[in-house]
Amino acid sequence: MPANNFLYDTRDIKFIFKEWLDLDRLLSLDVYKDYYSKDDIDSYIEVTSKICRDVLAPANEEADKIGVQFIDGKVITPPSFKNAYRVVMEAGLGPQSADREAEGRMPFCMSAPLNEMMIAASAGILSCWGLTAGAAHVIQKYASQELKEKFLPPLFSGEWGGTMNLTEPGAGSDVGASMTRAYPTDTPGLYKIKGSKLFITAGDHDLASNFVHLVLARPEGGREGTAGLSLFITPKYRVNDDGSLGEWNDVTTAGIEHKMGLKGSPTCSLIYGENDDCYGYLVGDPVGEDGKGQGMNQMFSMMNEARLGTGVLALAVTAEAYYNALAYSKERIQGTKLTDPKGPRVKIIEHEDVRRMLLLQKSCIEAIRALLMKTYYYIDLECDSPDPEEREFADYMVQISTPLCKAYASDMAWPLIGEAIQTYGGYGYIEEYPVAQLARDCKVFSIWEGTNYIQSLDLIGRKFTMKKGKALRTLLKVITEFIQTNKETMGFEKEIGVLGEALNDFQAILGILQSYMTSGKIAMMPLYSTRILHATSMLYCGMLIMEQGLLAAQKLKEVGDNHYDSKFYLGKVASARFYVLNVVPQIAVIKKVFEIGDATAIDIPVECLG
Amino acid sequence: MPANNFLYDTRDIKFIFKEWLDLDRLLSLDVYKDYYSKDDIDSYIEVTSKICRDVLAPANEEADKIGVQFIDGKVITPPSFKNAYRVVMEAGLGPQSADREAEGRMPFCMSAPLNEMMIAASAGILSCWGLTAGAAHVIQKYASQELKEKFLPPLFSGEWGGTMNLTEPGAGSDVGASMTRAYPTDTPGLYKIKGSKLFITAGDHDLASNFVHLVLARPEGGREGTAGLSLFITPKYRVNDDGSLGEWNDVTTAGIEHKMGLKGSPTCSLIYGENDDCYGYLVGDPVGEDGKGQGMNQMFSMMNEARLGTGVLALAVTAEAYYNALAYSKERIQGTKLTDPKGPRVKIIEHEDVRRMLLLQKSCIEAIRALLMKTYYYIDLECDSPDPEEREFADYMVQISTPLCKAYASDMAWPLIGEAIQTYGGYGYIEEYPVAQLARDCKVFSIWEGTNYIQSLDLIGRKFTMKKGKALRTLLKVITEFIQTNKETMGFEKEIGVLGEALNDFQAILGILQSYMTSGKIAMMPLYSTRILHATSMLYCGMLIMEQGLLAAQKLKEVGDNHYDSKFYLGKVASARFYVLNVVPQIAVIKKVFEIGDATAIDIPVECLG
Repeated sequence: MPANNFLYDTRDIKFIFKEWLDLDRLLSLDVYKDYYSKDDIDSYIEVTSKICRDVLAPANEEADKIGVQFIDGKVITPPSFKNAYRVVMEAGLGPQSADREAEGRMPFCMSAPLNEMMIAASAGILSCWGLTAGAAHVIQKYASQELKEKFLPPLFSGEWGGTMNLTEPGAGSDVGASMTRAYPTDTPGLYKIKGSKLFITAGDHDLASNFVHLVLARPEGGREGTAGLSLFITPKYRVNDDGSLGEWNDVTTAGIEHKMGLKGSPTCSLIYGENDDCYGYLVGDPVGEDGKGQGMNQMFSMMNEARLGTGVLALAVTAEAYYNALAYSKERIQGTKLTDPKGPRVKIIEHEDVRRMLLLQKSCIEAIRALLMKTYYYIDLECDSPDPEEREFADYMVQISTPLCKAYASDMAWPLIGEAIQTYGGYGYIEEYPVAQLARDCKVFSIWEGTNYIQSLDLIGRKFTMKKGKALRTLLKVITEFIQTNKETMGFEKEIGVLGEALNDFQAILGILQSYMTSGKIAMMPLYSTRILHATSMLYCGMLIMEQGLLAAQKLKEVGDNHYDSKFYLGKVASARFYVLNVVPQIAVIKKVFEIGDATAIDIPVECLG
Repeated sequence: MPANNFLYDTRDIKFIFKEWLDLDRLLSLDVYKDYYSKDDIDSYIEVTSKICRDVLAPANEEADKIGVQFIDGKVITPPSFKNAYRVVMEAGLGPQSADREAEGRMPFCMSAPLNEMMIAASAGILSCWGLTAGAAHVIQKYASQELKEKFLPPLFSGEWGGTMNLTEPGAGSDVGASMTRAYPTDTPGLYKIKGSKLFITAGDHDLASNFVHLVLARPEGGREGTAGLSLFITPKYRVNDDGSLGEWNDVTTAGIEHKMGLKGSPTCSLIYGENDDCYGYLVGDPVGEDGKGQGMNQMFSMMNEARLGTGVLALAVTAEAYYNALAYSKERIQGTKLTDPKGPRVKIIEHEDVRRMLLLQKSCIEAIRALLMKTYYYIDLECDSPDPEEREFADYMVQISTPLCKAYASDMAWPLIGEAIQTYGGYGYIEEYPVAQLARDCKVFSIWEGTNYIQSLDLIGRKFTMKKGKALRTLLKVITEFIQTNKETMGFEKEIGVLGEALNDFQAILGILQSYMTSGKIAMMPLYSTRILHATSMLYCGMLIMEQGLLAAQKLKEVGDNHYDSKFYLGKVASARFYVLNVVPQIAVIKKVFEIGDATAIDIPVECLG
């Protein structure tokens, strides 16, 4: 079995788009109605599958074994990357879909599963252009017409790469500690940039002829912290008025990181203005007299996209591990059934604990996919709906879901891929099989784009409280209504019952949180925020997968047991039951533990930790 | 910060041996009383620390970067291994301590923490001789005097390596499917061996001049399954009567595995008798007329040691990750405190979620160390106590604890080292820092020596029911008495209360298990056995760490707050509180989920899984 197995099962993606989400509603909107119909998803999936199977997956071995290399100051990608990059760009599966002003642009929610598939084929390769779309989107949204004309076309075509420059050696999670400076020049909007950036994904490589770095820097007069930062379009090579490349812009690639995984993704250290000759274009307005810049807000637009994108990365890598472990479990023969010890030797998928591991992976993956795709759907609605109420509703759902998408998906990747390795047994630990690499690839997703702790603070400190709790109430209303509507659904009383208890437990968690906050025990929030984020995610995911399960049960009735799709629907119902009955009850422990309210971790002096 | 940081904190080990375990009782036994005193542990730790710091840890980088290589049929270890091997053997820290017939031998429980430290310095290097002791012990226990004289001295000295040969390409968890055959020769006890073995740890390398393979094989007349297997001492080179090496014994190393981690450990494929010229010595008696051999029972003696050893491996690697993450968290400055946003930038150890991650790691590591060292202590008692009742009690505790030691320690390694990576943030993903390697190193521990599923079946199917439940009742009595005795301890009412609830929940789990079994729902046992193993582990670990916490609280009172050890004791109390109040409550969910009794995973047809 080759390491670059692409075994992606797309049936669930089709179910989501053709059966579960109200795609008809979205595609009836003006921007889409002349261009897309629901069934288009089939051909997109087919084309993408072919590229994954024929181009990306085969190149993934080089991504991991050779990896990107740093030779004589240049970032060299493995040989197979060139063709892979070209094929994806030519198929229009690169940053093109991010052009929000293009006629006939694809809804985000339709390009998301295509990205998911490509990532599953090779997360490392995808990272080479994964942020270009987001960078282009920021420019499109905030930059002047002139800058847009200058920089956007080659970004959307993939000829150039776009990057996101926040992190510095001393400024990781603490973005506001940035030491990168911007000095005004005689040309309005043009600044000299000076500083170092670290961990810049795809900050340099040989697939693109130029790079457009979006650099957060502090101009003179910018106050301390994130509020004083502005955003600068800082190309690697300057761009002439006719669009051709000019001189080198004094952006030096100092090196790349040697990472545990994702070795096809160049993680660069960049130095701006080492020779005092690096220029960047200010995006938006200069810092005001109050010392406030627009940079962080602008960057957040990119960051929110990147956070959802990280959720998709985590999902794809986890699912690829599952599909491979599943295939292996159907081939590998080992032992007899415990309930039939004198019977024949069986495939390991017949063993109870292997079944448990597989259904745990399947149900979590599907629950997370439901969360992500629903969120992308809301992004499209928020962007394109003519109805202000619908837009507001969708906006709340996007805002509150974004940290869940990023953190829950990436927190689950590590244990779930651990289960995929365990499903294989000894072979899971061997690099000739695909799961070991997928485990190594996934671990950064819980760290980059804001660590998952930062996501939990965003959820509880910002999203729970925004608009006086309106977003949180919106989410709770959705869940409550679902439970109310379905509580008497025949055959699912137990599941809906458990979901109802989980909602009560979650409400209790909110109450406990409230009482800690009002009694001045502020530190209890960050001490429990990660767990509260998980509780929120499991509750919402439980509702979404259950909604899918009920739909699947209905479909199963319609098509009958002998239909070729009956096994899929039965499997969907199984995912819903398993997730709700085995995963969701963890919310009760989080409630209990929060109620006990142990604060030992923050009460003890540092030296007690060893 | 170098990758080969050896930052092992040995204070907890000293606490265990000098303050917690009743070592005086053990060392008063005849075999030890003239040789050891409790304070010896200090000098052993000191010597071992020095070897770890000066020899093993520096070589660990080569273990991972170069790894063992397979060149022209030979297994080549990295250059630094030779000196490391020599130093450890000369210090008597290799297999020597396993000689149970030597005057002045060290108790197992005293050599275990020394192994723990060396593993932390380099798990890969340690694996090169990790199984030699176990192989020697089997020979000492079961082989004839002649074989013992022939093979034991060079094994105990480390001149030769000893291995454990169960796994074959088609026989992993299913040991009984072994296809390796043994054919009698004219010499009684000497057999021709023919077959292939896979995943043989340290099955070949250039640090030892010969290898003594303990090979499970089926002689003529041996029945199917494990019952028909015998064990054969099969050297790589034959051994002349004077102990010198003779001809090659037709044992071919076919290759080594390319693993995710533990790259310093040669995982070999061995072919026995490719030229029909491989001979092995039968250990014990030939298969009887009933076709039953003694091989599997003999191998179990080695396997039980290896299972405990795996627990120590998992513990050591997890703890090394923690100590490094802790050190990093005390250096890295990032952000202000959430509760003091206008205050100074702080070290990340000041952030609440970092504290949570650190104390989670610390408390689980200490709980697991308590479990392991207590079990080694019982092994010594079982072996050496003159009191048959004490021996019986110790035996029950060892039997029931062994699967917990192996599976709980190794199941926790992956998520806990994941938290260590997360504590580092981005740098945790970079191979120049130590935690990425430790994560890669640890994942096999949940798989080898019997997967953790097999451990859970051993626990519930065998250990819970052995001697009509006597072992289980013994464990429950220990826990119940602890709770009874301490339920009114001032300042710990909450913790003991939670432990009491956990005991009730666990009793309920046993009741549910019983009712499934009596109602014929046998498959519910293997479906929930992994979770029940975790519940058992958390309950017992919760009691052990709490016992340590109460002792530490007492000591703290004695020494006072200004004593240099006060922070350690306070930290110990913190570990106990955190583990009991944050980890142990998970038993309640396991109870709840088991009560709900979802059987979807085994009820659905295979095709529903995708």
